[in-house]
Amino acid sequence: PEPFNPSEHPHRRFNPLTGNYVLVSPHRMKRPWLGQVESPARVQLPEHDPACYLCPGNARANGESMPEYTSTHVFTNDFSALLPGPVSLADSDSELMVTQPVKGTCRVICFSPRHDLTLPEMGLQEIGNVIQTWAEQYTDLGKEYAWVQVFENKGAIMGCSNPHPHGQVWAQDTLPTEVAKEDQNQVDYFRRRQSVMLMDYLRMEEESGERLVASNRSWVGLVPFWAVWPFELLLLPRRHVLRFTDLTPTEKEDLADILKRLLTRYDNLFQTSFPYSMGWHGAPFLPGDFTHWQLHAHFYPPLLRSAAVKKFMVGYEMMAEPQRDLTAEQAAEWLRRVSEVHYKQVNA
Amino acid sequence: PEPFNPSEHPHRRFNPLTGNYVLVSPHRMKRPWLGQVESPARVQLPEHDPACYLCPGNARANGESMPEYTSTHVFTNDFSALLPGPVSLADSDSELMVTQPVKGTCRVICFSPRHDLTLPEMGLQEIGNVIQTWAEQYTDLGKEYAWVQVFENKGAIMGCSNPHPHGQVWAQDTLPTEVAKEDQNQVDYFRRRQSVMLMDYLRMEEESGERLVASNRSWVGLVPFWAVWPFELLLLPRRHVLRFTDLTPTEKEDLADILKRLLTRYDNLFQTSFPYSMGWHGAPFLPGDFTHWQLHAHFYPPLLRSAAVKKFMVGYEMMAEPQRDLTAEQAAEWLRRVSEVHYKQVNA
Ligand SMILES: O=P(O)(O)O[C@H]1O[C@H](CO)[C@@H](O)[C@H](O)[C@H]1O
Ligand SMILES: O=P(O)(O)O[C@H]1O[C@H](CO)[C@@H](O)[C@H](O)[C@H]1O
Repeated sequence: PEPFNPSEHPHRRFNPLTGNYVLVSPHRMKRPWLGQVESPARVQLPEHDPACYLCPGNARANGESMPEYTSTHVFTNDFSALLPGPVSLADSDSELMVTQPVKGTCRVICFSPRHDLTLPEMGLQEIGNVIQTWAEQYTDLGKEYAWVQVFENKGAIMGCSNPHPHGQVWAQDTLPTEVAKEDQNQVDYFRRRQSVMLMDYLRMEEESGERLVASNRSWVGLVPFWAVWPFELLLLPRRHVLRFTDLTPTEKEDLADILKRLLTRYDNLFQTSFPYSMGWHGAPFLPGDFTHWQLHAHFYPPLLRSAAVKKFMVGYEMMAEPQRDLTAEQAAEWLRRVSEVHYKQVNA
Repeated sequence: PEPFNPSEHPHRRFNPLTGNYVLVSPHRMKRPWLGQVESPARVQLPEHDPACYLCPGNARANGESMPEYTSTHVFTNDFSALLPGPVSLADSDSELMVTQPVKGTCRVICFSPRHDLTLPEMGLQEIGNVIQTWAEQYTDLGKEYAWVQVFENKGAIMGCSNPHPHGQVWAQDTLPTEVAKEDQNQVDYFRRRQSVMLMDYLRMEEESGERLVASNRSWVGLVPFWAVWPFELLLLPRRHVLRFTDLTPTEKEDLADILKRLLTRYDNLFQTSFPYSMGWHGAPFLPGDFTHWQLHAHFYPPLLRSAAVKKFMVGYEMMAEPQRDLTAEQAAEWLRRVSEVHYKQVNA
């Protein structure tokens, strides 16, 4: 048999955080594309859109109006998927039809009063305000809820219903599926090795360098070995940090820097406002020892080869296992090659 | 606290096949939609498209040409994600960067020589030919591979790169992630209860009737209690059947009937060619006792409220847990209400 070459031969990689595999088919980058192409939003947005329900001063879905905010602004989602009201729930009478009550709340975080900006186009100071708002939400909601999920859906192809720069925070009294898996796998590793999984992993990645994209004093951004999405990123603090609320002022300052740089690379890759879903994972707000956790952010961007061609996670992926074409190492190299000066800045 | 009402209050449901939860937010059906709308393919396709690489007689991507087939036609994918060649792979030196070799093959199954048809628009005889082809693929590939995944991606929004009616079969020597989970959960249940999980589940669903959509002598189609996609379906044989290769001629005949009826309901729901990914799960082709398995097909369709508005599985779903708005019971009722006569037939 031929000697194995990871950039030529199909193989599977294991994700120790989730316990799932991904099928990697690097030889498949050459196939033709006859399917759906996306139409990237090319229109220049106005700084203020009178029809936008997130712009300062405008009317919201529930009839209230947005304040004249000048930095970030947080409010409860008018159509929250989670509600705070307690309901009494009878025990499920079968293990095959189990219902579980859930209490929680959903908030919207406007990143800026400007309708036409995105995180990488904002200044470090403004990105810093977003980070500060995330920290405040974690502090506030962490008092009441076991899990606080800060995330951003960016771009229409990620189901984002409004281009005004914003993210969300959903808090709840139970640990959601993905988080429960990460918790379990990190605790198993910790018990087995007396060492923090993602700290060990970070050390290995820094030694190898192959999958690193950008880093600074406090943070490292890399394409994880087990990446599923073509240009997936994992963002880790260098220090062992359990929760977003544990970040030092310096780490928060450096976070603005690394976010701006990574997201600018994203935009520059295909010269488009790069769509993604991103979110933070850290130790739950529960009593007990969570030393096994390391705070991190996931970035899951769908684009595959251009602003118009995305990766579809469909048939085989849904029924069997995620599949990717280019390797994590190739993706990291592409992301390393592009500039950290935003293309709109260059063309301006 | 208010008494729990599943069609009003947020709750979580447990999927015993995968071990995952889904967040159900039934009160959320009212939110406005300002996001991306899909443009459903409304053009009338020709019966034969000279530019289609799946139509009889046309050239394929590798230069070969398609035979003048008259029923179904199977060939090896020119851009297979899995390859049969064995490669020698050194053992991974860390549990955090595990690579596993994988051997397999990917085939394309043309459902019909006609470029302009889809399964629900084909006659029972023609659908029967597709079922026979699936059975042959399972027999053939099951001899060599532990797992054979038959699936169909239908519609451009499901990444289907060609509207010509076709599905795929990917076979491999390892059990993919989703399958390994279903196997484990079914075997656990069997050991605990001495009974087949999906057979017990089917009995409960038949007693309740709430989530049934259509059935016949041999098959039951229902919206599973733990459905994630808005109009997800689970299709089960009434008899305890381990693998597709174990279906009797009568069961295969009845499968054509139930497929035509379920997929016609799908098309009629929003008067559009309903996109979905579907696939079969059954016992692996491995030695050993797989009594705990029950053959089934999953249908994962993305549309939410019209031909133009789909459900996005993004931020919260990727970081935390799948979320749905309408309940499984509501979806089943909608699907029960539509006709089993295809809307194109009515309008014709
Ligand atoms: O094989 P196709 O139809 O070209 O490709 C489609 O199905 C595959 C299997 O589900 C996916 O991996 C691809 O992302 C999708 O575009
Ligand atoms: O809350 P939004 O932006 O209206 O909605 C978007 O994000 C939610 C959370 O990831 C998803 O459940 C929705 O499917 C998606 O369209």
